[in-house]
Amino acid sequence: MLGRVNHVAIAVPDLAAATAAYNTTLGAKVTAPQALPEHGVTVVFVELPNTKIELLEPLGEGSPIAAFLAKNASGGIHHICYEVEDIIAARDELKKNGARVLGDGEPKIGAHNKPVLFLHPKDFFGTLIELEQV
Amino acid sequence: MLGRVNHVAIAVPDLAAATAAYNTTLGAKVTAPQALPEHGVTVVFVELPNTKIELLEPLGEGSPIAAFLAKNASGGIHHICYEVEDIIAARDELKKNGARVLGDGEPKIGAHNKPVLFLHPKDFFGTLIELEQV
Repeated sequence: MLGRVNHVAIAVPDLAAATAAYNTTLGAKVTAPQALPEHGVTVVFVELPNTKIELLEPLGEGSPIAAFLAKNASGGIHHICYEVEDIIAARDELKKNGARVLGDGEPKIGAHNKPVLFLHPKDFFGTLIELEQV
Repeated sequence: MLGRVNHVAIAVPDLAAATAAYNTTLGAKVTAPQALPEHGVTVVFVELPNTKIELLEPLGEGSPIAAFLAKNASGGIHHICYEVEDIIAARDELKKNGARVLGDGEPKIGAHNKPVLFLHPKDFFGTLIELEQV
């Protein structure tokens, strides 16, 4: 079921400073910031040869990463996104195996305009897993 | 400086259960467990098309992931490992830019028998970064 690692997401309190750390200090290519008000985040991508790192800063009220940053004030690794071919088939197979899908269980359109789902971190040893249909 | 994401490491309290979750529930290929007493961990690799996930369980006294699991009892994403071409050049450039290298600053031989260094998570927004020379 699991395909490529599409991205690893890191929540940060200060996107400009994090961009500088990845660009200047670590010498990686970082994209321009994109505000995604419908997702409650501003994102940049650190582009690496085989995958990407998504740096996330909260945007607006009720950001989905606000609680995480309240617990991890300096930031931290937030989730891993894996690609799947068929998100409905993946969801149904996971549910059959007892894994819990967050929210109402229906795929949402994610930050890359593709259908995504999140799996409950308690079912995967504390790791929040995003599945993205590609 | 940063090359490929070599792996994302996830610390887990029960490697057999985590292996089953990634193999059976998520349908990924997982290698047989390797005990690495000199590193204080037992590891398996989840092999994905573009990178791998390293599942780590503490082994013996004083495991380097024991403190992390004491704080995150069900487990969690522990670090991201990036490949670099020249670990000494990378280290010297990072130190020049004010980043802190953990330990005595000299590369150690890591779980893949390659020289590795870890960077201070406080300098990278709560993310523990491993660099591996490939």
